[in-house]
Amino acid sequence: MKKLEEYVTSIPDFPEKGIIFRDITSVLSDADGLQLAVDTYVDMLKDVDFDVIVGAEARGFIFGAVLSYLFHKPFIPARKPGKLPRSTVSMDYELEYGTASIHLHDDSISDGHKVVIIDDLIATGGTVEAIAKLVEQLGGNVVKICFLMELAGLHGRDRLKKYDVSSAIVYDGK
Amino acid sequence: MKKLEEYVTSIPDFPEKGIIFRDITSVLSDADGLQLAVDTYVDMLKDVDFDVIVGAEARGFIFGAVLSYLFHKPFIPARKPGKLPRSTVSMDYELEYGTASIHLHDDSISDGHKVVIIDDLIATGGTVEAIAKLVEQLGGNVVKICFLMELAGLHGRDRLKKYDVSSAIVYDGK
Repeated sequence: MKKLEEYVTSIPDFPEKGIIFRDITSVLSDADGLQLAVDTYVDMLKDVDFDVIVGAEARGFIFGAVLSYLFHKPFIPARKPGKLPRSTVSMDYELEYGTASIHLHDDSISDGHKVVIIDDLIATGGTVEAIAKLVEQLGGNVVKICFLMELAGLHGRDRLKKYDVSSAIVYDGK
Repeated sequence: MKKLEEYVTSIPDFPEKGIIFRDITSVLSDADGLQLAVDTYVDMLKDVDFDVIVGAEARGFIFGAVLSYLFHKPFIPARKPGKLPRSTVSMDYELEYGTASIHLHDDSISDGHKVVIIDDLIATGGTVEAIAKLVEQLGGNVVKICFLMELAGLHGRDRLKKYDVSSAIVYDGK
């Protein structure tokens, strides 16, 4: 059987020179790849006691929503500015390629909620660190953070030391 | 049992005055609402013969991915500029609130592929019309387009006359 990493396409020099972009669209565009990716996340979560899944815009929506459906849990989108129509909390953070801001509806997490955060890839970890802080600001507890892919050379895991983090594929580089 | 429309939140004057924003985050943030929304799409697709699902960034990713998983079909993200790392086809179109451009990887659809397009909401229909044209440019056939919500006052369906379009909730206004 084909392994998950065999479905990933590596694109040199995207979005800029020196970066190897790990492209999950080739995982998604193969029904068996998609199934395997989802099964991989399910395996990470099967023994976790949680109330709600937060997915990071945009690729975290893809897997976050499938997992919410499969586990019958609420799905909370963490979104870019201007996208959520009700009152939000937000945090600025540094990206691998610039700066950005992420928002959560301020009624999306309740006090004591056990929260799983889903994204496809951890690079510097800035996005997910910001989301985790927003979850905590709203009174939630981050019980698990799951990625399909990790760029270990960017040391994103160092920022997420206090959390239980899993990633299915670890790339040494950036 | 609660109906799908009861999970939707209507937000007046977002993103600008005079617009009633139909917010699906309140559907997603209720596990029963999410289940019902997915079941509604499944019902639209259960008798459709198709090869691949295209989801429109970003909210179309949420349901498109779940449906791809459930039907064991490839999932193709239609994305904003600069997001897809390989060679793309793209089209400019008018939005309800400005103009935009949408991209597909040019190897994502093959000749004769039967394609379903998923988004959460049809407003003016510009985004999905552009995606449908890109699918056709790549040799695909759009066999079904599904939405949860339709803003009938914006007449988006008129642009999609040649396609088989379903929407679960029709709002008279804009």
